[in-house]
Amino acid sequence: MINNQISNEGKLQHLITTEGISKELITKIFNLAESFLKVGKRDVKKVPLLRGKTVCNLFFENSTRTRTTFEIAAKRLSADVLNLDIPTSSQSKGESLIDTINNLIAMSTDIFVIRHPEAGIPNYIANNVDESVHIINAGDGNNAHPTQGLLDAFTIRKYKKDFSQLKVAIVGDIKHSRVARSEIHALSTLGTSEIRLVGPEIFMPDDISQDKFQTYNDMKAGISDVDVVMMLRIQKERMQKDIIPSEKKYYEAFGLTTEILKHAKKDAIVMHPGPMNRGVEIQSEVADSSQSVILAQVTFGIAIRMAVMTLLVDKNI
Amino acid sequence: MINNQISNEGKLQHLITTEGISKELITKIFNLAESFLKVGKRDVKKVPLLRGKTVCNLFFENSTRTRTTFEIAAKRLSADVLNLDIPTSSQSKGESLIDTINNLIAMSTDIFVIRHPEAGIPNYIANNVDESVHIINAGDGNNAHPTQGLLDAFTIRKYKKDFSQLKVAIVGDIKHSRVARSEIHALSTLGTSEIRLVGPEIFMPDDISQDKFQTYNDMKAGISDVDVVMMLRIQKERMQKDIIPSEKKYYEAFGLTTEILKHAKKDAIVMHPGPMNRGVEIQSEVADSSQSVILAQVTFGIAIRMAVMTLLVDKNI
Amino acid sequence: MINNQISNEGKLQHLITTEGISKELITKIFNLAESFLKVGKRDVKKVPLLRGKTVCNLFFENSTRTRTTFEIAAKRLSADVLNLDIPTSSQSKGESLIDTINNLIAMSTDIFVIRHPEAGIPNYIANNVDESVHIINAGDGNNAHPTQGLLDAFTIRKYKKDFSQLKVAIVGDIKHSRVARSEIHALSTLGTSEIRLVGPEIFMPDDISQDKFQTYNDMKAGISDVDVVMMLRIQKERMQKDIIPSEKKYYEAFGLTTEILKHAKKDAIVMHPGPMNRGVEIQSEVADSSQSVILAQVTFGIAIRMAVMTLLVDKNI
Repeated sequence: MINNQISNEGKLQHLITTEGISKELITKIFNLAESFLKVGKRDVKKVPLLRGKTVCNLFFENSTRTRTTFEIAAKRLSADVLNLDIPTSSQSKGESLIDTINNLIAMSTDIFVIRHPEAGIPNYIANNVDESVHIINAGDGNNAHPTQGLLDAFTIRKYKKDFSQLKVAIVGDIKHSRVARSEIHALSTLGTSEIRLVGPEIFMPDDISQDKFQTYNDMKAGISDVDVVMMLRIQKERMQKDIIPSEKKYYEAFGLTTEILKHAKKDAIVMHPGPMNRGVEIQSEVADSSQSVILAQVTFGIAIRMAVMTLLVDKNI
Repeated sequence: MINNQISNEGKLQHLITTEGISKELITKIFNLAESFLKVGKRDVKKVPLLRGKTVCNLFFENSTRTRTTFEIAAKRLSADVLNLDIPTSSQSKGESLIDTINNLIAMSTDIFVIRHPEAGIPNYIANNVDESVHIINAGDGNNAHPTQGLLDAFTIRKYKKDFSQLKVAIVGDIKHSRVARSEIHALSTLGTSEIRLVGPEIFMPDDISQDKFQTYNDMKAGISDVDVVMMLRIQKERMQKDIIPSEKKYYEAFGLTTEILKHAKKDAIVMHPGPMNRGVEIQSEVADSSQSVILAQVTFGIAIRMAVMTLLVDKNI
Repeated sequence: MINNQISNEGKLQHLITTEGISKELITKIFNLAESFLKVGKRDVKKVPLLRGKTVCNLFFENSTRTRTTFEIAAKRLSADVLNLDIPTSSQSKGESLIDTINNLIAMSTDIFVIRHPEAGIPNYIANNVDESVHIINAGDGNNAHPTQGLLDAFTIRKYKKDFSQLKVAIVGDIKHSRVARSEIHALSTLGTSEIRLVGPEIFMPDDISQDKFQTYNDMKAGISDVDVVMMLRIQKERMQKDIIPSEKKYYEAFGLTTEILKHAKKDAIVMHPGPMNRGVEIQSEVADSSQSVILAQVTFGIAIRMAVMTLLVDKNI
């Protein structure tokens, strides 16, 4: 639970984690995102809400894909965007990191979008900046990736409406996934009826409140009768050799194939935060099927990020 | 001959190659480029034709120079520009390439400017995207570089007017040159009286219709009495050691010097797509002479790229 | 003394060095910067003074920090910004450098912001471009970094008003510092009463007119009774091993600590061009104290760069 996310006036001050963000605030973000979805379909895909504001993408971990989504969102809001890729090797200690941030604040940066390989860095920065500055966590270690968690929940709302009737399965390496953590907290707050974590025992988390989910080590049982199957990317670099003997073995046990998907509800939707490893965690046929909403997630992600940035900066919404 | 370039309504849908682009369409592009040349001379060098559109420069082969021309052209049209440099090493197979593209389309990208070391990739992508998306080939292997071909033909029109009276010599490694291929197709369509390819026999192409050109292995004969000398850059990385014994030998045989240039018409213009290797394929005196239109090509290139982008996106021109 | 900085009409044509810039012109830059400071505090931090102009950051030496300040300044003026990082390894000789510049000029670039590891390159370029193009030197070797020199003088004016009454100490490796050179010339022109250079003898410059400053090899004596202490960054890469035995030894002799600072005037301000090496040339307590104006320098730097760009381009100011 993070307290620095909400200002004394009850406004969104930073977005560090979905944990502790209220249902009311999530709903506010979603409703604003809905209006931005319409902007994305217009001939001129731009609104002047952040004109004259500066958004700084500060990436200590390389991710062209995620940075691009924030860059597009900021530009659609008419903000000026700075992209700074800073290898962590050039950052010796926390103090020099705060010096870097304070320099950019002195240049009148309004929002920092921060990705860092170490958990807790965006929160540390949020605790050390002036209240005129806003931090968005774009992924910190295994900890959180709140805009991804929100856009995933938003996607479910678009297709399934009532969370209190839903069974959702999250499949893969939940233990090392910041995406899964942010999804679990958001879905839990929204009152999701049943959250299932599916994967090998070694991939189950030990740091999330047990009353929020059930675990399944068998794929068929795990996705049986669910409304939503949320696949995670297998992060090869985060796994030890002996945990998963081979990609092929993993695919046989937990890969989402057309065959396996039949165990879920007939109208179940399939999600993936991307980028996909086709043939490792998901079969190409499933990824490209009518049940897949994977590309819709990307579109919704722009709208969610526009909504978060707007709520951080705009004092009248 | 590529068919995916023109939509059913007869509009420019993609620009993959100059082959098969009609004289009428080339003339339309040129006339629009003329109007953009005036914009480049104004105090405020901007028009709002692509406001709210997103242009994504997707470069799988590094070229700051070419990318910059597209970036400037898009910004002059008021588009938002994304620059993505993707090393081909991170792209394992076509399928993941299409995933990358589809993700960017889901973020509402309108135009992709694609450079790829492999011939055919921009065409493959054009065949696999929705019709709301437009592809500009910014160079694919040895195959094509259509905006360069168009801007070169536009440059000739600016200085020489009537193509049916013109003798044009293209000098250098035509076999490995995407620029030369795009020039040959454009000049041929525009009815150029005589297209000569000049260079060592080993540099002559074997994949272009023989009735479009004549070949010359002797420099003096090749440029004798021509109106236009189009030099190509010697791409050292594309040549085998044994083909050209030394830069010096090549310069002696096919370098364009003041002395050699006298064999062309007195008012012949000298062109080069850049960047030049001074002293390898062209003498500095010639590059900087009053006959050289090399920097004008660069200026015209911005206008041509603005025109192509506008025609791709604007439904009313 | 550089003559190419002022046009025949008495306008600022290029900014290569603070040497030879008149007190009147510096004052004009400062007054314009004051007005831009107000823009930085507005809700919409943008003015349309450079709309439709293109500013090209041409960095032959990597410096994300400095490039960012110019990028922000240009965007606040509504200019289009191109960022080109060119490793000097890809630039063989001056001629190809001028070809690169001329190509960018042919694309209608209005202002080049140039950083180069070799002294004199921005001046060489300024001498070889058309008068419609403007060069800002963003640091060339040990030679000059004029916008830093100006923003430092501007900072002093903000806090101390009357230069004719001021004692200013510059502490560190003045010999290898382009920042110090640009500070000395600007402060001298503005009539600073006393400029002291403080550091080991080996760090004292031999190329600046001796009547502009006094040298001190003892820290206490050097900053005794001064109004301003300007620290320089210790550039480890520019020093030979035998000059400074260790960072610790340097810190003991010339580091600015709370203790040492007591020798300066009670209301002395502490400056640093950044990035700081805390514990090498400056104590953290001093850097973060109420006497430190280091972050204010950064804010003023944006305003100064906006002022310089505006004066270069605008013919009516």
